[in-house]
Amino acid sequence: MTGLKDKILSISRRTRATPFTRRVEAAGVRGYTVYNHMLLPTFFDSNEADYWHLCEHVQVWDVACERQIEVRGPDAKRLVQLMTPRDIRRTAIGQGLYAPLCDETGALLNDPVVIKLADDHWWISIADSDVRFFAQGLALGYGLDVEVGEADIWPLAVQGPKAETLVTRVFGDAVPSIRFFRSKMLEFRGRAMMVMRSGYSKQDGFEIYLNDADLAEPLWDELFAQGQDLNVRAGGPNLIERIESGLLSYGNDMTQAHNPFECGLDTFIDLDADIESLSLEALRPLKDTHEHILTGLVFETPMTFERFEFEAGGRVVGDIRSQVWSPRHRLHLAMAMMKSDFVAAHDSVEIAGARARIVPLPFDFDAISRAEVSA
Amino acid sequence: MTGLKDKILSISRRTRATPFTRRVEAAGVRGYTVYNHMLLPTFFDSNEADYWHLCEHVQVWDVACERQIEVRGPDAKRLVQLMTPRDIRRTAIGQGLYAPLCDETGALLNDPVVIKLADDHWWISIADSDVRFFAQGLALGYGLDVEVGEADIWPLAVQGPKAETLVTRVFGDAVPSIRFFRSKMLEFRGRAMMVMRSGYSKQDGFEIYLNDADLAEPLWDELFAQGQDLNVRAGGPNLIERIESGLLSYGNDMTQAHNPFECGLDTFIDLDADIESLSLEALRPLKDTHEHILTGLVFETPMTFERFEFEAGGRVVGDIRSQVWSPRHRLHLAMAMMKSDFVAAHDSVEIAGARARIVPLPFDFDAISRAEVSA
Repeated sequence: MTGLKDKILSISRRTRATPFTRRVEAAGVRGYTVYNHMLLPTFFDSNEADYWHLCEHVQVWDVACERQIEVRGPDAKRLVQLMTPRDIRRTAIGQGLYAPLCDETGALLNDPVVIKLADDHWWISIADSDVRFFAQGLALGYGLDVEVGEADIWPLAVQGPKAETLVTRVFGDAVPSIRFFRSKMLEFRGRAMMVMRSGYSKQDGFEIYLNDADLAEPLWDELFAQGQDLNVRAGGPNLIERIESGLLSYGNDMTQAHNPFECGLDTFIDLDADIESLSLEALRPLKDTHEHILTGLVFETPMTFERFEFEAGGRVVGDIRSQVWSPRHRLHLAMAMMKSDFVAAHDSVEIAGARARIVPLPFDFDAISRAEVSA
Repeated sequence: MTGLKDKILSISRRTRATPFTRRVEAAGVRGYTVYNHMLLPTFFDSNEADYWHLCEHVQVWDVACERQIEVRGPDAKRLVQLMTPRDIRRTAIGQGLYAPLCDETGALLNDPVVIKLADDHWWISIADSDVRFFAQGLALGYGLDVEVGEADIWPLAVQGPKAETLVTRVFGDAVPSIRFFRSKMLEFRGRAMMVMRSGYSKQDGFEIYLNDADLAEPLWDELFAQGQDLNVRAGGPNLIERIESGLLSYGNDMTQAHNPFECGLDTFIDLDADIESLSLEALRPLKDTHEHILTGLVFETPMTFERFEFEAGGRVVGDIRSQVWSPRHRLHLAMAMMKSDFVAAHDSVEIAGARARIVPLPFDFDAISRAEVSA
């Protein structure tokens, strides 16, 4: 496929609005994508202007599309463990765990953050696929004593170097002591809700798991009122920032055609754990033999691609999944799903008339700037 | 939510392109929606211009987003039957069956066309939800001997009153004898593929289940070459035509919050069949007691809605799910999920300062034009 110019999104009830959408619209949103059948704002000014602002100030993001698949009941923990090869046994209450979900072949179905509310009560904070259906099918087939649903939870992210200051002003002095991927139940207008240090950027920040849609606009307004001197703005997951930071996007960088080792998710797979997980048996032999590896590519000049697959030596050796010009590093960065054997044997590849360095993910810009382009 | 102005769609690999997308772009597509994580063209000129053209001529639609969930193996038929309360036992080879999919509570998960290729080989031609996950979960949990996947099939629709003429020119004289929801395996460039009389309009037409992505552009080009004197154009499912025709849209008009009786799908539920289906037990008592009913609303003048829920007698009695101005009938048409008891007792309701007649679906425009607005 050629690179496509953005078009109009025809919005309908099927592309669900969120409790924040009126405020997002009032803030001048210019672009959306559709994520879990829901509107996700992508940019307000431009990708680049939003990027610089995110890295310097603080932004409020409507990420209500991070739907919470709620699993409750005596078999809740068993069902969650069946779906992920990551050992969830030592998860603390209120802790989030990045946990790839896989089927019995080891194929990746989603890469959510799994959150433990109680031993018999879990949220699966999903990327863009209907995990609820997989959980429902398994629960029915295995006869599990569990309820599966989509919770009325509307995550709102506050991201950027001034996020801690802003969230502290709104939720109080307990905020700074929240550690990464940990949470506290904190009050807004007398209602307790989960506030976690997390989010889809590397600029620090929090996700507020709003549990009352009627408080969506008051919460939004309070963040903007308290953040005026911090230069708070509306934003969304930023393409430039997330690629620079090496944050993966399910559906973009990897799909059900891939297993977690191909995505470099080895540290989140507990191959030797004594757990009941659907994918463990299939994953064991794949650890050192997977066909693809998600890899960084670095071009010296801005690129446009007529097609995303690229060849070397007469065969397709890779597929560019995400890519963007980095205005900070003055480099064109890409994530590509490449043939493992090619990556093992080469440190560069020619694509669309330009030479790209092959580098590990996440990008190490110090190492990149030290290295020369190798032929 | 207020009515939203259309915004830019940020296109990525996650919003998958199709084998037809280059041709769609060259044809001047102006809007897309995202459907099954894939680009679905919504309009080329305008909704209204596309509508008049569709009703008079012939259009080629990229509906590759109608993904085919493929179920193969000795237990294939059992798995498909588990998911739908419609009796699939008498399905002929090559027949399509509109078959609501439901979970064990009777909730609607999708409303696909189920296609039988062989007793142990079925396609589920899905609406916008990840049915594959439900099928996979059930297959694993029940230990079924079956393979579930997404087939490399790329449906292309040819719709409009001149569709039969055009498809006959390209696929030959066997085309006119294909009955509604039946198919034949016909050849294009020496390759046999399924051609079914079906599609998401009431203007007649066919869906070609292209099974070789490399033939996508040749097939598109051939349809345009052969259809020049028929005034062939690119198009997509048309909001005006589909609402006038009473064609439902999963995710818009109904969701997992509803059961098929609430959507008026009674004729597709075989409550008394001796079949193994997950939802039958839950559905039986719902037939005559369901809380909601999907209903038509008819306004005399063009409407814009600040919110979609509407009240009467101090309670919410309905939720407008889809709506459009019909330029043919000079009426504003809506489909609303309404409280059954209110619909049973009233033949009109006031919404946003205007009176709407409550009418059954599909719209009967003869009956509507005969009737007076009742107070």
